[in-house]
Amino acid sequence: DTSAKVIDGKLVSKQIRDEITSEISKMKEAIGLVPGLAVVLVGDRKDSATYVRNKKKACEAVGITSYESHLPEDCTEEEVLKCISDYNKDPSVHGILVQLPLPHHMNEEKILNAVKIDKDVDGFHPLNIGRLAMRGREPLFVPCTPKGCIELLHRYSISIKGKRAVVIGRSNIVGMPAALLLQREDATVSIIHSRTENPGEITKEADIIIAAVGQPNMVRGSWIKPGAVIIDVGINAVDDPKSPRGYRLVGDVCYEEACKIASAITPVPGGVGPMTIAMLLSNTLTSAKRSWQN
Amino acid sequence: DTSAKVIDGKLVSKQIRDEITSEISKMKEAIGLVPGLAVVLVGDRKDSATYVRNKKKACEAVGITSYESHLPEDCTEEEVLKCISDYNKDPSVHGILVQLPLPHHMNEEKILNAVKIDKDVDGFHPLNIGRLAMRGREPLFVPCTPKGCIELLHRYSISIKGKRAVVIGRSNIVGMPAALLLQREDATVSIIHSRTENPGEITKEADIIIAAVGQPNMVRGSWIKPGAVIIDVGINAVDDPKSPRGYRLVGDVCYEEACKIASAITPVPGGVGPMTIAMLLSNTLTSAKRSWQN
Ligand SMILES: NC(=O)C1=CN([C@@H]2O[C@H](COP(=O)(O)OP(=O)(O)OC[C@H]3O[C@@H](n4cnc5c(N)ncnc54)[C@H](OP(=O)(O)O)[C@@H]3O)[C@@H](O)[C@H]2O)C=CC1
Ligand SMILES: NC(=O)C1=CN([C@@H]2O[C@H](COP(=O)(O)OP(=O)(O)OC[C@H]3O[C@@H](n4cnc5c(N)ncnc54)[C@H](OP(=O)(O)O)[C@@H]3O)[C@@H](O)[C@H]2O)C=CC1
Repeated sequence: DTSAKVIDGKLVSKQIRDEITSEISKMKEAIGLVPGLAVVLVGDRKDSATYVRNKKKACEAVGITSYESHLPEDCTEEEVLKCISDYNKDPSVHGILVQLPLPHHMNEEKILNAVKIDKDVDGFHPLNIGRLAMRGREPLFVPCTPKGCIELLHRYSISIKGKRAVVIGRSNIVGMPAALLLQREDATVSIIHSRTENPGEITKEADIIIAAVGQPNMVRGSWIKPGAVIIDVGINAVDDPKSPRGYRLVGDVCYEEACKIASAITPVPGGVGPMTIAMLLSNTLTSAKRSWQN
Repeated sequence: DTSAKVIDGKLVSKQIRDEITSEISKMKEAIGLVPGLAVVLVGDRKDSATYVRNKKKACEAVGITSYESHLPEDCTEEEVLKCISDYNKDPSVHGILVQLPLPHHMNEEKILNAVKIDKDVDGFHPLNIGRLAMRGREPLFVPCTPKGCIELLHRYSISIKGKRAVVIGRSNIVGMPAALLLQREDATVSIIHSRTENPGEITKEADIIIAAVGQPNMVRGSWIKPGAVIIDVGINAVDDPKSPRGYRLVGDVCYEEACKIASAITPVPGGVGPMTIAMLLSNTLTSAKRSWQN
């Protein structure tokens, strides 16, 4: 008796990547311009290496040239800054990603700020965030995961204007920019975080819920207004002896309960996850086009 | 039968100005440093001239040297930019204010962005707003009116952490930064604007309401939870034949109704109004101290 429509991020991200592929191929033919994305990876975290590999693969699939600098865990901040500075100057590179987390001996803020604002395809530069927060200003890039959430709402024709929206989580990379984006689209936004009392009473008022917490199954059926739309950003590994890997991935929303009450919901995996990379490719294409216009 | 405590912004702002006066006089004696604030006024709007005059007077009263450039309405954007650039370079100027609104033929964004970030005592630069929005980042300056609102809560020992707060209005200069400040202090924040349906249902849940709308008496008694704290930023002129001037100033909150339900409330005038200038003086002093340390 599942009633919610499943918001299929895998399918939508495939559509978007197809759109990007065709736009890049036309651009290449017409003006010979090929977008380039550079990734800076420091250290040997396995998960980071996997993320970087996936990003490179996704780039190649749509026709974006990928560049990579892999620096050792014990390199200096100056070496990372030098690497970024080289990419800043390189006209074939239109986007620069610094894979987080960085080793503890480095100043993350300083390193992220070194990325030239017009190559900041992650959209994490405070100048981009400031413009995102301000009316009448336009950020050069919007952070990929929250942009992917809004894109899903758009592609499923879910209206945002005038709706009550609740964002759970206020991180710099997901929750906070998601709230700013919803507000730009004229939702009435409330933000829940770890200090919020009775979060379920607040989510219960929402027409749209974006959950980006990192707490498996936190949002229960009883937290949801009938007919609400649920975007679940959470990716949490929980033990599962029945799975060959010994664990499985779940979201921040209890899917089994939510899908009976919501009108539409993203699954985990296959919801927001694939949208993040699609938006990164989209930001890189935008940046390449902009470099040509200027 | 008024039960609400009156939050006396006039009194608090006097205390703050006294604190600033004594700090500046000590600083002058100890290291010979005198803070300086430059105001750029373009055109002949009477209200703008009054605001500038009041700011200059307030500076003089606490020992801040004030500088003024008054440019004609029909001057060019380049002339305004040149003027800002001169103040940017002048080491005796620690803060630069561009009085808004600018004439219509000028690009406000471009002109505001020309103010050097470490002299942006208005806190309107997108880099400052971005840092205000981001966890783990610190803005160099916080916009004066919202900073004054929070300062009033602090000076009256009204706790913010974990409280439900509603901000009505989302302008770049008041509502939006007020919401970001409340969130930095761990309130659970909702933002109401002109597209919000049933705003009274949302305000009714709030422990703290900041109203910055520009709609006389919009917030009625029935919108307020018993015991809530009300910060009324609105300054609206309404016709009043009984007043010698033919009008009087009222806030965005219906004071007569609210003061019977709220636990504390700012009056209009004499609430947030005087705090704005006090915060401007405070930001200028901070900037001068910072220039000495660097
Ligand atoms: N689909 C994708 O591509 C991506 C998925 N993710 C996933 O999204 C989730 C969130 O990621 P991220 O934003 O980076 O996480 P962070 O840990 O940076 O932020 C978590 C936020 O949730 C809040 N929070 C934590 N516990 C609670 C609680 N019990 N009740 C209410 N709020 C709480 C925190 O509050 P406070 O601020 O008070 O500490 C914080 O604001 C994770 O599961 C992550 O794996 C992340 C990025 C991309
Ligand atoms: N005490 C002081 O020192 C200062 C006082 N003020 C006063 O504060 C008030 C607000 O100023 P400012 O922020 O500059 O004003 P703006 O006009 O820039 O912004 C007003 C905000 O209120 C929202 N709004 C307008 N009508 C309604 C409505 N009916 N219901 C809900 N929201 C509504 C608007 O929504 P939307 O975004 O959808 O248009 C907008 O976000 C004014 O009275 C002003 O005089 C301002 C600055 C300093």
